[in-house]
Amino acid sequence: MTHKIAILGASGYTGAELIRLLAGHPAYEITALGAFSKAGQEMADVFPHLRHLKLPKLVSFDAIDFDTIDLCFCALPHKTSQEVISKLPKHLKIVDLSADFRLRDPEAYETWYGNAHSAVEMQGEAVYGLTEFYRDDIAKARLVAGTGCNAATGQFALRPLIAAGVIDLDDIILDLKCGVSGAGRSLKENLLHAELSEGTNAYAVGGTHRHLGEFDQEFSQLAGRDVKIQFTPHLIPANRGILATCYVKGMAEDVFDAFVQAYTDEPFLQLLPFGQTPSTHHVRGSNFCHIGVSADRLSGRTIITAALDNLTKGSSGQALQNANLMLGEDETSGLMGAPLYP
Amino acid sequence: MTHKIAILGASGYTGAELIRLLAGHPAYEITALGAFSKAGQEMADVFPHLRHLKLPKLVSFDAIDFDTIDLCFCALPHKTSQEVISKLPKHLKIVDLSADFRLRDPEAYETWYGNAHSAVEMQGEAVYGLTEFYRDDIAKARLVAGTGCNAATGQFALRPLIAAGVIDLDDIILDLKCGVSGAGRSLKENLLHAELSEGTNAYAVGGTHRHLGEFDQEFSQLAGRDVKIQFTPHLIPANRGILATCYVKGMAEDVFDAFVQAYTDEPFLQLLPFGQTPSTHHVRGSNFCHIGVSADRLSGRTIITAALDNLTKGSSGQALQNANLMLGEDETSGLMGAPLYP
Amino acid sequence: MTHKIAILGASGYTGAELIRLLAGHPAYEITALGAFSKAGQEMADVFPHLRHLKLPKLVSFDAIDFDTIDLCFCALPHKTSQEVISKLPKHLKIVDLSADFRLRDPEAYETWYGNAHSAVEMQGEAVYGLTEFYRDDIAKARLVAGTGCNAATGQFALRPLIAAGVIDLDDIILDLKCGVSGAGRSLKENLLHAELSEGTNAYAVGGTHRHLGEFDQEFSQLAGRDVKIQFTPHLIPANRGILATCYVKGMAEDVFDAFVQAYTDEPFLQLLPFGQTPSTHHVRGSNFCHIGVSADRLSGRTIITAALDNLTKGSSGQALQNANLMLGEDETSGLMGAPLYP
Amino acid sequence: MTHKIAILGASGYTGAELIRLLAGHPAYEITALGAFSKAGQEMADVFPHLRHLKLPKLVSFDAIDFDTIDLCFCALPHKTSQEVISKLPKHLKIVDLSADFRLRDPEAYETWYGNAHSAVEMQGEAVYGLTEFYRDDIAKARLVAGTGCNAATGQFALRPLIAAGVIDLDDIILDLKCGVSGAGRSLKENLLHAELSEGTNAYAVGGTHRHLGEFDQEFSQLAGRDVKIQFTPHLIPANRGILATCYVKGMAEDVFDAFVQAYTDEPFLQLLPFGQTPSTHHVRGSNFCHIGVSADRLSGRTIITAALDNLTKGSSGQALQNANLMLGEDETSGLMGAPLYP
Repeated sequence: MTHKIAILGASGYTGAELIRLLAGHPAYEITALGAFSKAGQEMADVFPHLRHLKLPKLVSFDAIDFDTIDLCFCALPHKTSQEVISKLPKHLKIVDLSADFRLRDPEAYETWYGNAHSAVEMQGEAVYGLTEFYRDDIAKARLVAGTGCNAATGQFALRPLIAAGVIDLDDIILDLKCGVSGAGRSLKENLLHAELSEGTNAYAVGGTHRHLGEFDQEFSQLAGRDVKIQFTPHLIPANRGILATCYVKGMAEDVFDAFVQAYTDEPFLQLLPFGQTPSTHHVRGSNFCHIGVSADRLSGRTIITAALDNLTKGSSGQALQNANLMLGEDETSGLMGAPLYP
Repeated sequence: MTHKIAILGASGYTGAELIRLLAGHPAYEITALGAFSKAGQEMADVFPHLRHLKLPKLVSFDAIDFDTIDLCFCALPHKTSQEVISKLPKHLKIVDLSADFRLRDPEAYETWYGNAHSAVEMQGEAVYGLTEFYRDDIAKARLVAGTGCNAATGQFALRPLIAAGVIDLDDIILDLKCGVSGAGRSLKENLLHAELSEGTNAYAVGGTHRHLGEFDQEFSQLAGRDVKIQFTPHLIPANRGILATCYVKGMAEDVFDAFVQAYTDEPFLQLLPFGQTPSTHHVRGSNFCHIGVSADRLSGRTIITAALDNLTKGSSGQALQNANLMLGEDETSGLMGAPLYP
Repeated sequence: MTHKIAILGASGYTGAELIRLLAGHPAYEITALGAFSKAGQEMADVFPHLRHLKLPKLVSFDAIDFDTIDLCFCALPHKTSQEVISKLPKHLKIVDLSADFRLRDPEAYETWYGNAHSAVEMQGEAVYGLTEFYRDDIAKARLVAGTGCNAATGQFALRPLIAAGVIDLDDIILDLKCGVSGAGRSLKENLLHAELSEGTNAYAVGGTHRHLGEFDQEFSQLAGRDVKIQFTPHLIPANRGILATCYVKGMAEDVFDAFVQAYTDEPFLQLLPFGQTPSTHHVRGSNFCHIGVSADRLSGRTIITAALDNLTKGSSGQALQNANLMLGEDETSGLMGAPLYP
Repeated sequence: MTHKIAILGASGYTGAELIRLLAGHPAYEITALGAFSKAGQEMADVFPHLRHLKLPKLVSFDAIDFDTIDLCFCALPHKTSQEVISKLPKHLKIVDLSADFRLRDPEAYETWYGNAHSAVEMQGEAVYGLTEFYRDDIAKARLVAGTGCNAATGQFALRPLIAAGVIDLDDIILDLKCGVSGAGRSLKENLLHAELSEGTNAYAVGGTHRHLGEFDQEFSQLAGRDVKIQFTPHLIPANRGILATCYVKGMAEDVFDAFVQAYTDEPFLQLLPFGQTPSTHHVRGSNFCHIGVSADRLSGRTIITAALDNLTKGSSGQALQNANLMLGEDETSGLMGAPLYP
């Protein structure tokens, strides 16, 4: 059986990445592609790398007949997403890639995003889309909230340790390096090639990055107490890829064991041999996350490094993984493609 | 039916690219991976991006039982390839990715490569592997010689024009820009990041690049007379991608028509609307070649630009396309994946 | 004696490059920095790399007392420049970095730029700023028009050959590769890191690039007849640098001799030994232009390659070189800094 | 008075950077350039970006008349340096850029470098070359040991805090991102463009990087007790630049004040306004180090970020700064050039 798929916000990078993945998926058919300013255009004009595909033209949202759609991906800007989703038919399965339904608590949402949520009732309904940890809920959900790409990386690197109680919860530092596509196809000066190439800088230093809202929510719930980590993201001159370097207090062997327990059967979460470190080069364009554990020379300190592709495992790949669950397909279907290297 | 595949020279970039493509192919099973200095190692150690795959260990060539193999890809250095291939069992189908069997004329081979060919008899047997132009011969061949990556790009941009007689054969200029992976995983100073990043330069200027041997052979045969083009390659700071810019004398409309005639039914050769230009960004990691035709302001001059990924359509993708033909599979099988962008 | 300098448009890349160069110049003092939207800001906020310098605050143009200024650099957008310059006091020496005064013929200007010139009288007064070829005129000029960066590169590669009559004037092809900073600090989608990194493409194909106006004007005047070249620029993933590859018909020895005659005493134009090729890596951040001559395998065909830094020799360095002449300083003063490599 | 300068190891990146800086220095004359395998070559062939300079030919060390030399820079590989330096005439002032004389304790040297030191007596004589903290000793020294580039960055970010006693000495984490030129011009697979571009990874994870020897030595001496930090370097796809992100426990205001006290009069150490963060883009090719202080959302935690160019302030610029002191020149002479941006 072929499921009919719509993508709203198909003219951004996560939209394009969804199409790339869906095009190789045997059970899905892209039925509608929605956009705002680029409605009326052919996808081949917006994204020439997709020109070999037979795709519907970009249309405005009200031109889409959602009755014929089985599942809708929303790859819209934050805030816009909640407005659009709240008006979609209630039968429709939705995977939202924005930040709008990631935080369950309306107050926390307002704190981190600076505005009151306009679809509070749906906020409660949404399931947090970190597949490996919310599988059963996602399979039954109507609305799944894709996680932040940084938030996904940090959680893959830390959840099993918090759950297993093998690290000090009051001293977790997450130093993260991310490529530029995480910022989307937006016209900002700091995203220009001339400003970014051949350099690096930290941003949102001191605990102001919005993905901290997700870390706080998830880690605290997992631990059954308040957990607040330190998190500093850095922009590196690469298009794709996130590398998380986590500094924790805990014995490296216990940390490694916790990962062995948690991830051995996970198809996408690849634990490296003890002491090895992952590279974002080795996951590009794929749905895999590589994780390394190293003991520090200082006893009782452990470093965890995790690498994934922000547009795939950190966003559109995760979205497809969730859609597979929601539609009864094999969870890994269409997602086992090897990374592109070099 | 599953075909059993061996790859000799699996520790280089074209070897890794073959594995990436084969891993997603339903009809092939990688049975043996051969290497020289890295024999004995796991592929996950040589290419960590392939660690999720169940692959045989790298072994030396004499440890491979070729009786169980249906087709062997040889991704070996030039010169080594002819020595190895001449000793392989005669029943074995072979796709060679080296330069060793591209030139049919032993004298031309010696001119361009500086040494006498050590397997002259097989040189005559080999079919030139530019799939779109040698399909029938390839389907029946035992030994197929993969083309040079630059040679493939230039031929996709020029063959239909030479065949159709719409351009001046004595005034063809090919200015080519290529990414660094075309030079392989070799330890050369000019391939270091610090030497290459943020700059560009021409090399092999003046007609000394070995791929000219292929151009001369193919274009002359096609035209039924000597055709010698000017060809200047440039190294650009990118890992993948070749962009060919061709300057020809001929009417742009005739040129465009010749492409329409030749490529309309070709799944991988995508002719852009008249006046548009391709980008290597838009073909990365895929088997597609995008081709653009533009009229110059000077009447009777036409510019053709062609972009492909040197490791895919220019090498390993082409090799798989040929293997598909040789083994009776659909020519496009395993090769329709969309490019990775951005 | 210290000359007092103003820069209008100090918040763009050429403005910043001017400040970098002027900061190391013993005879100049930056007295005023003018800007539009960024007026009121400190330069350290607009360009943090200049934070160690004591610089005046950015101000709107009418806040500048031009009576105290000896020379004004205008690094403004095209069209804006002519409007601003036509209102500046007539005693003021001006080096304009925009395209507004490059073309002497109002009709040619309108053809290439699409609007009538609003300061036609000054258009006639302006001296074309290609220093090595207009030295005496520049020294006496009040208004000097900086050349296009591509136009400078192409002229360094071709002027001596046209002047010496050693090449066929009807068959000149200029294939040019340029870094992204030539497009300025403008918010355009194709200048984003994610769109540009790791790829290349041609643009303005077929003879539509505005710098052709300069080539036509200069080459025709030099030859005493109409000369129209073919010119195709390509964007490469680098911030700085232009590489021009010129295909001409003429004997390589004659071409090389013409360069020897013309450039032996030029401090910034460095002719490489015959057969060597330049790289944009080797001129980055400097005022040098490296030029190479190679014979093609086809008799009578010659390839000239030339590399310079578009922001330095192609723009702000040239501007300072001209200002030195206009103010009676040594032409090379402040400009002999070695390139930054790697 | 002109000082006569020799550079041993002139064919590497730090050698080339020294020449770039010295070429613009009024008081120095490069009298001899020594090399091993490249002896006999012209510098223009080894580093074409220096071709405009009149430089002596590369020669083997025994061809240099050290009696005519005032100061010798040794930009040699580790271990080689101690062997060469121990044989140089004793009157000669030396700035060593290798790791050989950084550690004062022979045992510590052996621990970190794996071999016994072959010039132990000179090890004691050498002054640690972190200019801002060893000025007086350097001015009187005969042999100065240039610091590690990572070690310099980390110390600029942490020394004033340790000295002022404003941070917890038992919980200092240094997460460092560095460009590839720090690894020199060596032919290693992981330094190839194809392996490095568009990705990032940690290396020497867990406290195995040799620069920790310097941190241990300097921080412990400064604190008067053992101080051992956690240090994880990361390779980023850039040629130049180091960004250090330090996680400390201490009040951000106290940290900021300590920097104000320590660095206000330092010409090269630029403290950014509180809460701002530096970028390696903004120091490229210069001798400046930009430092930012931010308070974390978690009370009592502070983040310090520091950026410098590893080849300039981290190595050759530091070496020149030290030479200036040793030869009685102004410390900043030849080093105030603005960074190259973009």
